[in-house]
Amino acid sequence: MKFVFDRVNLKALTKELVALRRDLHRYPESGWTEYRTTVRLLEELETLGVPVRFGEEIHHRVTMYGLPDEKYDRDCYQRVLQECGREDLLSKMKGGFTGCVAEIEGAHPGPVVAFRMDIDCNDVGETQDVGHFPVREGFQSLHPNLMHACGHDGHAAIGIGAIRLLLAYRDQIHGTVRIIFQPAEEGLRGAASITNSGALDGVDWIFGGHIGLKLNELGAVAASSRGFLASTKFDVTFKGRAAHAGASPEMGHNALAAASTAVLNLLAIPRHSGGSSRINIGTLHGGTGRNVIPEEAVMTLETRGLTTEINEYMSAAAERVCKSAAAMYECGYESRFMGAAGCAVCDPELVGRVIRSLKTVEGISRIEEDFDFAGGEDFTTMMSRVQSKGGKATEMVFGCPIKAPHHNGFFDFDEQVIPLAAQAVAKIVLDLCSESDAK
Amino acid sequence: MKFVFDRVNLKALTKELVALRRDLHRYPESGWTEYRTTVRLLEELETLGVPVRFGEEIHHRVTMYGLPDEKYDRDCYQRVLQECGREDLLSKMKGGFTGCVAEIEGAHPGPVVAFRMDIDCNDVGETQDVGHFPVREGFQSLHPNLMHACGHDGHAAIGIGAIRLLLAYRDQIHGTVRIIFQPAEEGLRGAASITNSGALDGVDWIFGGHIGLKLNELGAVAASSRGFLASTKFDVTFKGRAAHAGASPEMGHNALAAASTAVLNLLAIPRHSGGSSRINIGTLHGGTGRNVIPEEAVMTLETRGLTTEINEYMSAAAERVCKSAAAMYECGYESRFMGAAGCAVCDPELVGRVIRSLKTVEGISRIEEDFDFAGGEDFTTMMSRVQSKGGKATEMVFGCPIKAPHHNGFFDFDEQVIPLAAQAVAKIVLDLCSESDAK
Amino acid sequence: MKFVFDRVNLKALTKELVALRRDLHRYPESGWTEYRTTVRLLEELETLGVPVRFGEEIHHRVTMYGLPDEKYDRDCYQRVLQECGREDLLSKMKGGFTGCVAEIEGAHPGPVVAFRMDIDCNDVGETQDVGHFPVREGFQSLHPNLMHACGHDGHAAIGIGAIRLLLAYRDQIHGTVRIIFQPAEEGLRGAASITNSGALDGVDWIFGGHIGLKLNELGAVAASSRGFLASTKFDVTFKGRAAHAGASPEMGHNALAAASTAVLNLLAIPRHSGGSSRINIGTLHGGTGRNVIPEEAVMTLETRGLTTEINEYMSAAAERVCKSAAAMYECGYESRFMGAAGCAVCDPELVGRVIRSLKTVEGISRIEEDFDFAGGEDFTTMMSRVQSKGGKATEMVFGCPIKAPHHNGFFDFDEQVIPLAAQAVAKIVLDLCSESDAK
Amino acid sequence: MKFVFDRVNLKALTKELVALRRDLHRYPESGWTEYRTTVRLLEELETLGVPVRFGEEIHHRVTMYGLPDEKYDRDCYQRVLQECGREDLLSKMKGGFTGCVAEIEGAHPGPVVAFRMDIDCNDVGETQDVGHFPVREGFQSLHPNLMHACGHDGHAAIGIGAIRLLLAYRDQIHGTVRIIFQPAEEGLRGAASITNSGALDGVDWIFGGHIGLKLNELGAVAASSRGFLASTKFDVTFKGRAAHAGASPEMGHNALAAASTAVLNLLAIPRHSGGSSRINIGTLHGGTGRNVIPEEAVMTLETRGLTTEINEYMSAAAERVCKSAAAMYECGYESRFMGAAGCAVCDPELVGRVIRSLKTVEGISRIEEDFDFAGGEDFTTMMSRVQSKGGKATEMVFGCPIKAPHHNGFFDFDEQVIPLAAQAVAKIVLDLCSESDAK
Repeated sequence: MKFVFDRVNLKALTKELVALRRDLHRYPESGWTEYRTTVRLLEELETLGVPVRFGEEIHHRVTMYGLPDEKYDRDCYQRVLQECGREDLLSKMKGGFTGCVAEIEGAHPGPVVAFRMDIDCNDVGETQDVGHFPVREGFQSLHPNLMHACGHDGHAAIGIGAIRLLLAYRDQIHGTVRIIFQPAEEGLRGAASITNSGALDGVDWIFGGHIGLKLNELGAVAASSRGFLASTKFDVTFKGRAAHAGASPEMGHNALAAASTAVLNLLAIPRHSGGSSRINIGTLHGGTGRNVIPEEAVMTLETRGLTTEINEYMSAAAERVCKSAAAMYECGYESRFMGAAGCAVCDPELVGRVIRSLKTVEGISRIEEDFDFAGGEDFTTMMSRVQSKGGKATEMVFGCPIKAPHHNGFFDFDEQVIPLAAQAVAKIVLDLCSESDAK
Repeated sequence: MKFVFDRVNLKALTKELVALRRDLHRYPESGWTEYRTTVRLLEELETLGVPVRFGEEIHHRVTMYGLPDEKYDRDCYQRVLQECGREDLLSKMKGGFTGCVAEIEGAHPGPVVAFRMDIDCNDVGETQDVGHFPVREGFQSLHPNLMHACGHDGHAAIGIGAIRLLLAYRDQIHGTVRIIFQPAEEGLRGAASITNSGALDGVDWIFGGHIGLKLNELGAVAASSRGFLASTKFDVTFKGRAAHAGASPEMGHNALAAASTAVLNLLAIPRHSGGSSRINIGTLHGGTGRNVIPEEAVMTLETRGLTTEINEYMSAAAERVCKSAAAMYECGYESRFMGAAGCAVCDPELVGRVIRSLKTVEGISRIEEDFDFAGGEDFTTMMSRVQSKGGKATEMVFGCPIKAPHHNGFFDFDEQVIPLAAQAVAKIVLDLCSESDAK
Repeated sequence: MKFVFDRVNLKALTKELVALRRDLHRYPESGWTEYRTTVRLLEELETLGVPVRFGEEIHHRVTMYGLPDEKYDRDCYQRVLQECGREDLLSKMKGGFTGCVAEIEGAHPGPVVAFRMDIDCNDVGETQDVGHFPVREGFQSLHPNLMHACGHDGHAAIGIGAIRLLLAYRDQIHGTVRIIFQPAEEGLRGAASITNSGALDGVDWIFGGHIGLKLNELGAVAASSRGFLASTKFDVTFKGRAAHAGASPEMGHNALAAASTAVLNLLAIPRHSGGSSRINIGTLHGGTGRNVIPEEAVMTLETRGLTTEINEYMSAAAERVCKSAAAMYECGYESRFMGAAGCAVCDPELVGRVIRSLKTVEGISRIEEDFDFAGGEDFTTMMSRVQSKGGKATEMVFGCPIKAPHHNGFFDFDEQVIPLAAQAVAKIVLDLCSESDAK
Repeated sequence: MKFVFDRVNLKALTKELVALRRDLHRYPESGWTEYRTTVRLLEELETLGVPVRFGEEIHHRVTMYGLPDEKYDRDCYQRVLQECGREDLLSKMKGGFTGCVAEIEGAHPGPVVAFRMDIDCNDVGETQDVGHFPVREGFQSLHPNLMHACGHDGHAAIGIGAIRLLLAYRDQIHGTVRIIFQPAEEGLRGAASITNSGALDGVDWIFGGHIGLKLNELGAVAASSRGFLASTKFDVTFKGRAAHAGASPEMGHNALAAASTAVLNLLAIPRHSGGSSRINIGTLHGGTGRNVIPEEAVMTLETRGLTTEINEYMSAAAERVCKSAAAMYECGYESRFMGAAGCAVCDPELVGRVIRSLKTVEGISRIEEDFDFAGGEDFTTMMSRVQSKGGKATEMVFGCPIKAPHHNGFFDFDEQVIPLAAQAVAKIVLDLCSESDAK
């Protein structure tokens, strides 16, 4: 017989979670600038009376990869300060120390169970098309070129939803529940900082989850994932020499020509017979004026590979391509590390328990054991850390219909996944913290 | 015997012109946003009591090529409004109607003699190197990524200097002197608008001038130029389709790959046996985020040719390359015309007169007849208009040592060229408006 | 207990098969020109008294993909005619009708069991390095730029070996054994023609096999394979316009520039998230003289994909890239289909029987069930045909150490795999044609 | 009054020269393999009784740039040996020592006057179009991919024509006339070898000439040329590593990808503001088989520049591009010098005399003084040598209508230029060797 969260008004909860998600959707914040998002979560947790840590104490300064430039950070901070006051909270986050870690102490002793939700948005502009659901309902992004196009607004709402469900059953919890609201997942940047801060110390079980992906059916849930692509993120700068394009083109060292050569040859890095590989030059900005030979070009790129070796093959080749392209145009060349994630394998023991729990959740109609994630996810950093200390980890996927691919301006997901996933998360935690296990 | 402007204190004038030039250098303004520059000139002219027209009346709205985007324009306007008040003047210029046309009525009837000075800066960042003269003297650019790196600050000062010299000899002037302070020469944008407004109507003689170029010797002056490169300026936008670079790279239509392909193949357009050709992709901006297949890329480019035919060959090839590159990646493609200039030929009659005048100017040690300009200059648009109405035109070059090529962040010129060129301009005008000619 | 082919002197047989293999290695012949190879096999079969069909009767003229040009074919034919006389046999093959189909009639009625061996070489030059085994033993290729670098010389010898073993046990054979020596496997060209000729009609069981690949251990055998990459082969010709590179470069339409643009952008076709994809531009030949703008460029290319869809995605993208590159340089463009193979799935029923047989073969130490072939193989065409008529098919791999990757000039394999594979093939056939099955 | 060559039947001579030209056109021979052409010229000179030197004695082995490969040379030699016997002559030329130097001793002492005609063909296939004059008249090229597409067949005929005219007036010649039939002008290869052999020693006046170019009017003749482009010819080889394109693409070092990258970036070398520049990749051959990652690619290229400096700028940039492209794909890289020519300036003194002579030639209607050659011509090597010893030199152009650009398969010129140019050459020589000058 399926478990029902009978101590909670699920209908009312759903309404509140959807409202929360839409509010976050309206104010998307890019990695390391989730000031408003974090304030919003802190206020929710405050109301619920859940203790929470945030700011520098949950971060490791040296491994805060891919921080935005200072001016951008300052502008974001100021804007949020004006929007919501709360300098008491914000001042602790200043400089990118966003996200938070909540903790529910169960009524009885037991293991430490953690789950992680990521909260940042994408650097993508949201469509203004009237057929787009957020537009129709009036909650589309208010920030140009920023959008929750990967469902992390939903993740945050699921996290709050699970907390609310768990609080109602605290008397049955044997152990401690730690909930990590992680910043800067996009770009695989935030997990290392949280992990290295010690925020995962003592965790026995940890799981994460993502909505959508290629599991586009409500009620379908994957208990574990494989195919995490190892990934490296880096920025490359070509430094050439400007010259007047009409009067002395031969005096220039064309940084944009170097970068364009790099783009084509990066995309042309041979496929690897050992498994999936990826490369993307996400952005390129070069040149100063129409009639000036471009003296600088900057690109942001990433490589991926099914294994660490394949990813290293890709990033070594990428480095070689960029270096050679720079030399071709007598340009200087700088490469700056911006983030990375490795591969990770889900623990069968935990996966088995998750499957058993999922079978008892109302609304879950299909359980997949081994979803092909086929992408990078910096949760693997957390998984590896917990596993290295003897804990167990898995990454789930909560299926739901989506309207366009992730990271696309038309992305939209079925909000019904929020309450369903919240229940699934809560049920898994309750089962892991049940009396029998605690003994 | 050489002519001496004995009614003017040349030493004092020089000091003031240098101060004016440095002030303009400190506040460089890009094409169509020369609000402060224009205010500064208007105030000078006001003080001198010279009648001046400005704002919409000297522009032709439809041919104001390559206007900046509205937000940028508004921001510039607001900043200048705060800096210098003078809403009385600024409100007339709002929307890019910068520049001005002054007119000195001589004491006697005679021809209309015009000269033109351009006043805009470059989209180039100025070096902070302590060896750079403007840095050492503390007048370097206060605006990031903007710099007077082509000497138009000097041109403006020369214009004011010539006016001051001419005013002292107004009693000897037979005719009218019209001085055009033109905006947006960079990008070959501003001349068409001024010309089409009718501001050149009635002009009998017109000349322009540029400092530096490859004539790097103080005292050397070219009375005429050849080798103007015809030029076309346009912006190209590639519109692709975003997709997650890890999860579904095959779903993307990579606008940046299209643009990079275009860059290389644009530079590879075959040289033309008929004479010089040029192409430059001055800027390229593409992509939204590191892990998103770029959905848009925008480039600003220009072609040049020794003849109109060669320039048309280049721009037709460029169009074909961009179109094909877009098709290769299933991207949409838009091309937007941003400015142009043709070729023009200096009139021997006027050149002869200029040479005769130059020979009488103290400090001019060498006169070139036929300088190879080897670049684009939208003054050719004014030349062609005046010539089509029966007037005569020439473009001069005032030699001086320069520290780095034009449009380079280290550009700097010998300020002694300012008083010298001002005297040359004034002397040419005085000779063209002398009693004997007026008859 | 392991089966021993006690009616045959295995030591002597091994010696003869190795000699045959080395003879074939010395005279490698490219697809559709295996004149000497076929004559050699026909003579062996004649000696053994095995009936054999060859020439036009085993081919389907319309689907003889990727035939060489007529002159090359004629030259090969003439050379072989001079080398070995046998016009009686050769005249039937003239025009590329190479390969042969042998048939052993068992003593008793039963099913038709077929196996296929490919016999063509690669367009690769063999190393002259003294450390290279064929060089040391004096049987390296006598034909420049041709080499058995994929082990098909071994395949042919295995086929003859299996026939000799089977002939010794003909009294125990219930059914018919059909052996297909197929030409032109490289380029995935020959299988279609043989298949469409009807040569597979009536086959109940069919299997093929390849030596080496990534199974580099003698005694390891794979009973079935997956991961066949669907593939399309085509040639692309760019037709431009020649011009004098010094006197009028602008008059040329540079076919080589178009081809080079195509090369880079073909390699840059995005990876597919659905599984492996491949693209290779194997050869490019362009231009006529150093100072002439190249007027023609020809490339041979191939795409591959884990599924037919992925391969079609690749070949459609390739077509688009080439077409756009041609348009970019005002070149004409022609694409010519040269061969293809689809995907295929091995039949579990046959695979199970193969595994049982392999377990009884002396020298086989490890059996893999599901080898990742990760390449194209036109045997899939035969598999699909037999399966479509209700028969069963599988593709095996006979492991052995190799000295360099397949298709490399240093390729060499351990000849001990020949007798071992011959026994494996014979034992599988004997078991499929055993009394119990025939009933 | 115009001079008439009244001692010669011009109509008959024209007929014979045209026949000679058509014979040479039918058997075009590429640089350093002009065996038949040289035999043909030697036979003509033998008949005329003109002493001639040829073979090793007129060459300088070390500077015989860009020799063909030995096999090709041997094949050409053998073919000609079969065609025309004359081993007595051919054996002296074996190994590329083609061309010859004839000498007419005048009746009186005087200066040494030399003129040079080049005799090699282009690596271009001749059209088979029935509208093409050589096809219509049945004298099109019998050698595939070889064609006299630059008029050197005409040059050779003009040389013989001039000799025949001069012989008729030997009694009036004060001095010596040296006629150089130079091989391998295409690729700028042959002049250095002839020059360094000492064949020009003692020359007081030297001139060369070309038919056609952009002077497409019969009767127009240029007495001197400017705008010779300095040029460097070299071959580049990229050495990569082969691998199976399906099984292990990541193992390959793709030489063809490196070469394609080089092609685009070579064409993209910035134009030079100092004057004309050129670059051409005339041929590219890469790869061995469709499914093999290309392990080698070879390109033949050339750079040109209006000045030696510009040419050096181009070739240095080319070297850098190729080297970087090789590094990008982990390929080895070799560059081999194949030929070169510098710039040269015609001597006004000689030009003046040529003009005076031309004015007296019947049929010459227009004389240009300063033709823009806009191309490379290795005659500049001879000019520089003669000038360095105090002699005078010029390069002429004999105008005539052409049907297609030089080096194009449809190239054809008006044969009437042959007798006209022969007379012009003869008249110039006669005037330079006239009694008055000899004193």
